[in-house]
Amino acid sequence: MKIFAYGIRDDEKPSLEDWKAEHSEIEVDYTQELLTPDNAKLAAGSDGVVVYQQLDYTRETLQALADEGIHNLSLRNVGIDNIDLDAARELNFNISNVPVYSPNAIAEHSMIQLSRLLRRAKELDAKVAKHDLRWAPTIGREMRMQTVGVIGTGHIGRVAINILKGFGAKVIAYDKYPNPELQAEGLYVDSLDELYAQADAISLYVPGVPENDKMINAEAIAKMKDGVVIVNVSRGNLMDIDAIIDGLNSGKVSAFAMDVYAEEVGLFNVDWSNKEFPDPKIADLIDRENVLVTPHTAFYTTKAVKEMVHQSFDAAVKFAKGETPAVVVKY
Amino acid sequence: MKIFAYGIRDDEKPSLEDWKAEHSEIEVDYTQELLTPDNAKLAAGSDGVVVYQQLDYTRETLQALADEGIHNLSLRNVGIDNIDLDAARELNFNISNVPVYSPNAIAEHSMIQLSRLLRRAKELDAKVAKHDLRWAPTIGREMRMQTVGVIGTGHIGRVAINILKGFGAKVIAYDKYPNPELQAEGLYVDSLDELYAQADAISLYVPGVPENDKMINAEAIAKMKDGVVIVNVSRGNLMDIDAIIDGLNSGKVSAFAMDVYAEEVGLFNVDWSNKEFPDPKIADLIDRENVLVTPHTAFYTTKAVKEMVHQSFDAAVKFAKGETPAVVVKY
Ligand SMILES: NC(=O)c1ccc[n+]([C@@H]2O[C@H](COP(=O)([O-])OP(=O)(O)OC[C@H]3O[C@@H](n4cnc5c(N)ncnc54)[C@H](O)[C@@H]3O)[C@@H](O)[C@H]2O)c1
Ligand SMILES: NC(=O)c1ccc[n+]([C@@H]2O[C@H](COP(=O)([O-])OP(=O)(O)OC[C@H]3O[C@@H](n4cnc5c(N)ncnc54)[C@H](O)[C@@H]3O)[C@@H](O)[C@H]2O)c1
Repeated sequence: MKIFAYGIRDDEKPSLEDWKAEHSEIEVDYTQELLTPDNAKLAAGSDGVVVYQQLDYTRETLQALADEGIHNLSLRNVGIDNIDLDAARELNFNISNVPVYSPNAIAEHSMIQLSRLLRRAKELDAKVAKHDLRWAPTIGREMRMQTVGVIGTGHIGRVAINILKGFGAKVIAYDKYPNPELQAEGLYVDSLDELYAQADAISLYVPGVPENDKMINAEAIAKMKDGVVIVNVSRGNLMDIDAIIDGLNSGKVSAFAMDVYAEEVGLFNVDWSNKEFPDPKIADLIDRENVLVTPHTAFYTTKAVKEMVHQSFDAAVKFAKGETPAVVVKY
Repeated sequence: MKIFAYGIRDDEKPSLEDWKAEHSEIEVDYTQELLTPDNAKLAAGSDGVVVYQQLDYTRETLQALADEGIHNLSLRNVGIDNIDLDAARELNFNISNVPVYSPNAIAEHSMIQLSRLLRRAKELDAKVAKHDLRWAPTIGREMRMQTVGVIGTGHIGRVAINILKGFGAKVIAYDKYPNPELQAEGLYVDSLDELYAQADAISLYVPGVPENDKMINAEAIAKMKDGVVIVNVSRGNLMDIDAIIDGLNSGKVSAFAMDVYAEEVGLFNVDWSNKEFPDPKIADLIDRENVLVTPHTAFYTTKAVKEMVHQSFDAAVKFAKGETPAVVVKY
């Protein structure tokens, strides 16, 4: 059996080598190149390909794989938006993805960013960098003194709640489909409005489905406490960025961390350091002392990458054996 | 009854006003000036003074207070090294301090810094600041994947352990006087050597007493795991800074956070931004991507400051009534 992987980054190689060592019976080859119609032939003779890219999986790309007799596509990530599913269906592709690789990676990042905002760490670090070692007036707030509102208590939100409990913060949560255990603990409030009214800080863990589009808008922010801290590591479209900027300008929002952005594709994961930065709003946010911007890196840990590599290769093996992987994409 | 306070900073004023509102029967006055022989007379007519300064409380200073009939000194902080205790004894001073104001302030800071180091946040933030929004190769490690060695399980170490548990990290601990509850949980290893051998990250919560002087030296570091992360928010003299720098240079120590420094008096809490920085070692550490330096700010939270103000004023009232405060300095 042979599996071929595209777009393998340097940081994925240790996890790939681990997996190979544990599966010495399977032939594995890979390239750093992303999958295109031109390089599909690199996978010739393979039983399946393992992929991860923002670049579209077009009809031409899928046809080129099919021409090599390959009909198994195992994504190392979750998103399937960039696959031409009609073509995949016609060409009889089996597709697997990795929806849950490390909820902790994302939950930890959100809580690290929240704690840093409360501590005014960016301000203090900037002072230290220029050798101003006075601590006053850069006073911090403690996690344990906050009421933190967790919106969405799925895989990631639940891990965030455990972290918050460790800090001794007061947790309130809202989910359209409450989790029975958390309900028994009495963590839920009955509505988003109630959460907005009580929370000193709010962190989002809901999907970016259309009904959640811009849930954090001017109206929602108006219902929040003065000086609220907002953290979004989930999906960019959950927030109206202009409303957040207005909130920051007025002081209604005292601090803000974002790992995601509605317009992130083509902006994040690009080096703009020697080019004109195309998004003045994000440039402005990056420069603010009470804002932390990260370019969709919440997921980016050694543990998460290992899971993405290992789960996708495991799935590729299952497909090759004619079995059903733990997670298949139904489309 | 009247109480006079010296050295009140702007960030202390809200806590002072809170306390006054709760104690309307007590006359309170204050100055931003630190206590000196010259301004002791500002406290004339008071039953006690509330103070916080690194400036020495000399015989002259204490005599000047005694000349105003004042023999009650309530520190808003813990340290009494800068009091001429012989003079205080001769002049019959009652002294109180605030040894425990907010263990969480310090424990939270230590764990925020640890999590940031693991996440390579300083590197990533620097990239974002210059608009390099590529995430690779700045991959992070997760708290939950680490074995964290906690040295000292007193007030602060115990809070740090709770935070670590919230993250899902594996905690191992060492204390010369184990805490029975933690012992029952099986968290202790039998020796520092064992802790050094097992821990991916090590954080210190022991006092800077002479026997602990330079406990983190070249010999100790040699016993640690390759790539260990070290966090010291306790006392500067606990570490041999040259040994840590050597460890960073060789890669033995992958990352380091310090909030304290053996030579910090006269260096920290000073604005050097327009002056020549007097300590090249610290200047070098501040510039490193895998090092976080904070100038003894771990304690500096709104909650801690409130406790320092309220507990010291409460103690001053007790002294004035001829009663014994919750904490008196026995000297
Ligand atoms: N930044 C990153 O690197 C990164 C990585 C992975 C996932 N994410 C994002 O994190 C978010 C959470 O992921 P997850 O794995 O925890 O998802 P999940 O499906 O396990 O949980 C989502 C929860 O949100 C609830 N929900 C949905 N709409 C809601 C609404 N309007 N109000 C209240 N609750 C609502 C659902 O009932 C569910 O419990 C997703 O948006 C995901 O895209 C971000
Ligand atoms: N950075 C800051 O702003 C800040 C503020 C307050 C306190 N601190 C420091 O934090 C440290 C911890 O404070 P705390 O309130 O938790 O103290 P604590 O007295 O409550 O606990 C200290 C613990 O260390 C143990 N210990 C002492 N020597 C040891 C050794 N050689 N090996 C193992 N265990 C040993 C003791 O048994 C005790 O359990 C102190 O050094 C204190 O000065 C720093």
